[in-house]
Amino acid sequence: MKYKVFDEKDYLEIRDIINDDERVFYKERISEDYSHDELGDIHCYPDIVVQVLSAEEVSKVMKYAYENNIPVTPRGSGTGLVGAAVPVCKGIVIDMSRMNHILELDEENLTVTVEPGVLLMELSKFVEEHDLFYPPDPGEKTATIGGNINTNAGGMRAVKYGVTRDFVRGLEVVLPNGDIVEFGGKVVKNSSGYSMKDLIVGSEGTLGIVTKAILKLLPLPKKAISLLIPFPTLEQAIRTVPLIIKSKTIPTAIEFMQRETIIDAEEFLGKKFPDNQSDAYLLLKFDGNSAEEIQASFDKVADICLEQGALDILFADTDERNDSIWKARGAFLEAIKASTTLMDEVDVVVPRNKVSEMVEFSHQLQDKIGIRIKSFGHAGDGNLHIYVLKDNLTEEEWKKRLNLAMDEMYKKARELNGQVSGEHGIGYAKKPYLNQSLAPEILEIMRGIKKAFDPKGILNPGKVCQ
Amino acid sequence: MKYKVFDEKDYLEIRDIINDDERVFYKERISEDYSHDELGDIHCYPDIVVQVLSAEEVSKVMKYAYENNIPVTPRGSGTGLVGAAVPVCKGIVIDMSRMNHILELDEENLTVTVEPGVLLMELSKFVEEHDLFYPPDPGEKTATIGGNINTNAGGMRAVKYGVTRDFVRGLEVVLPNGDIVEFGGKVVKNSSGYSMKDLIVGSEGTLGIVTKAILKLLPLPKKAISLLIPFPTLEQAIRTVPLIIKSKTIPTAIEFMQRETIIDAEEFLGKKFPDNQSDAYLLLKFDGNSAEEIQASFDKVADICLEQGALDILFADTDERNDSIWKARGAFLEAIKASTTLMDEVDVVVPRNKVSEMVEFSHQLQDKIGIRIKSFGHAGDGNLHIYVLKDNLTEEEWKKRLNLAMDEMYKKARELNGQVSGEHGIGYAKKPYLNQSLAPEILEIMRGIKKAFDPKGILNPGKVCQ
Repeated sequence: MKYKVFDEKDYLEIRDIINDDERVFYKERISEDYSHDELGDIHCYPDIVVQVLSAEEVSKVMKYAYENNIPVTPRGSGTGLVGAAVPVCKGIVIDMSRMNHILELDEENLTVTVEPGVLLMELSKFVEEHDLFYPPDPGEKTATIGGNINTNAGGMRAVKYGVTRDFVRGLEVVLPNGDIVEFGGKVVKNSSGYSMKDLIVGSEGTLGIVTKAILKLLPLPKKAISLLIPFPTLEQAIRTVPLIIKSKTIPTAIEFMQRETIIDAEEFLGKKFPDNQSDAYLLLKFDGNSAEEIQASFDKVADICLEQGALDILFADTDERNDSIWKARGAFLEAIKASTTLMDEVDVVVPRNKVSEMVEFSHQLQDKIGIRIKSFGHAGDGNLHIYVLKDNLTEEEWKKRLNLAMDEMYKKARELNGQVSGEHGIGYAKKPYLNQSLAPEILEIMRGIKKAFDPKGILNPGKVCQ
Repeated sequence: MKYKVFDEKDYLEIRDIINDDERVFYKERISEDYSHDELGDIHCYPDIVVQVLSAEEVSKVMKYAYENNIPVTPRGSGTGLVGAAVPVCKGIVIDMSRMNHILELDEENLTVTVEPGVLLMELSKFVEEHDLFYPPDPGEKTATIGGNINTNAGGMRAVKYGVTRDFVRGLEVVLPNGDIVEFGGKVVKNSSGYSMKDLIVGSEGTLGIVTKAILKLLPLPKKAISLLIPFPTLEQAIRTVPLIIKSKTIPTAIEFMQRETIIDAEEFLGKKFPDNQSDAYLLLKFDGNSAEEIQASFDKVADICLEQGALDILFADTDERNDSIWKARGAFLEAIKASTTLMDEVDVVVPRNKVSEMVEFSHQLQDKIGIRIKSFGHAGDGNLHIYVLKDNLTEEEWKKRLNLAMDEMYKKARELNGQVSGEHGIGYAKKPYLNQSLAPEILEIMRGIKKAFDPKGILNPGKVCQ
């Protein structure tokens, strides 16, 4: 694609549209933050950054960009891990983070309507104060809801409740040509043409810019209890998971973790985890409306774990203990990041009964390739987060070994009928692996869909299938 | 679109592909059934019908059609209500109903893999025998799973469990050019490019032909109890529903019905309903793992109903009583159909707290337009089934009054931020209303998506947005 080179005249036009110098950043005024996301390895400055306050502003900027063939990259908190919010073709970055208002709580329809810049932690807090529940629970609580929608983020409660997609009822979207449209609404069912809402969810800002979302809520479960279950080996821990699923109990969450990761998290947070003596742990959560209802479930699961060699069953039935465990779990990514110089990640998802095979494979790669690899993740839904760490490797060795490790892991995931990404998306970094994993005819249709939305290819170019 | 006129040579080629005369029907051998669906008002014979047994057969027929520019219409049980399976451009009908095998039950991943011709009632029965649960529960139990996927059918349990889309994990699809591809899989999460699986769900056979589906299952709830609650007026009954939702109880189902419809069903089934003395009823279902868990929910709901003027609370806690109520509910459509000469339907979905306004509006139309209108439906999820009945009207009067009633009802649904179809789809019959309800730029993108899948426009032409 050939784009217009952004110049002074474009700057002046966009400044006029926004009409507030405090929200327009050009040249040396652009913060370094806008040149990368949390992945850190993909860098590119935009020509200009605008912080928008309304769908109308997004629409006007988009119209200008469309008419003048200028690339536009939308951005939330920048907590992504695949470079989706990095303006790899330069042009305009639209920073959505100040569109951060909760617009309406509708208790008769059990929906909340929000702007995309609302942070996940703000949304959870707000609805819980009203005794309501927004189940999607990705580890990164400072991500925006807009970002969660665009990656179809899943998080830890997906085992029982599903992913972000399952909680999006309606979207207001600015199309690449600047038109403002609505997909879906407060309705519970919808079979009125192709599901545009479901196309936007997970499209990583390549088909349209979400400016408002109507989200489904549930009543807040009255009780939640977590179990921390130490196992002698990771293999034993993970192999227990399909047996739990088969037992017809559905925990809210099933996470796995290793001692090393826990110790990293303890150092990072400066706080002790309830236990760090065992090689591997399963962390389970159960929720429901009464202690009895939950008890029946976790009794059964505790028995299964003990039969499979668990060393103990540690209950976290106080808020404090619960908090300390889940805070540590939430800090794993940051803790691993802090333990090395640079890292890259694999976010594959495999059928639940293949998790053990995938994790064992990635561990064996450490010695085979000579690179440190750590993993943790959502054992209950098959979504693994595997991190390859640079440590003190030279740039050249790092690239070489990283590529080797990545190629091997994605190949293994394909063999296990897995998918490239469970929740972080494809963005810029994972495009080669998407290309390997999908049939060429599917990629061709995806490009056709992109073209139907964005004939000029100006919205978040260079991402996903473009 | 200009299509090739189907001739003797095409017949011979297709006969060779299928290589089984018992499964190829040409000219006078085509049963009248293939010329319409359950709506009855849209009629067109195909040139040929083939009953396929495998994805490979579908692929070969599709390839031939694609190369020769012949329209193809896929068909399941033909229980649709919007003409989606009627071959309005003639050509080939591919009858999927003999691809009706349950292929695999995977208890470790809680999935069942089926061919598209499996009937909904067969699937429910099969998984329940394994103590598992496929929640989508449309009234028409003889519909195929392929049909349910293609309309994103919702049914009665959508209040608690969601719709067909929420239970489709993966699909094998034959594309219009004959390629066989897979979208999704046994994975619980997926953020690997645009959600093609979600585009196929609800696309009414216009983007590809589903030849295999991996469906998500849940553990079978151990207990279910229904409440039949008579109210003095329909208005009082329906206005109670948002209060139930607001009370933070989530019943499995909330249906509303009127005395007239119950009496029709009694006549149709030759069986008495537990009560037919009141003007209006709410029918609620609760499920869970213990009687206590359910009891807490329905006690609260019973109180709300009594406060809102309910005349009684009738419990159906035996299987027999439960069966008799839900069988009657399942027969409403057939019973109404049997009570008149011809009918047409509206399947709008509105926000849950607008159901009362929509139903009242449609009832007032009866006198205003001079036509009989009956309704029942899913009060808990806002999806109404409203039937306009011809009775003894002349053809001319019927068309005139029907169009008036339809125009008024769809207009009202738009005013209430509703959508044209909750679960029956757009097909051929509802295209004018989809055109009125969606912004032209959205329809244009939908046509672009159709083109990305089906550049020659040969798959189920004349439907949805084409």
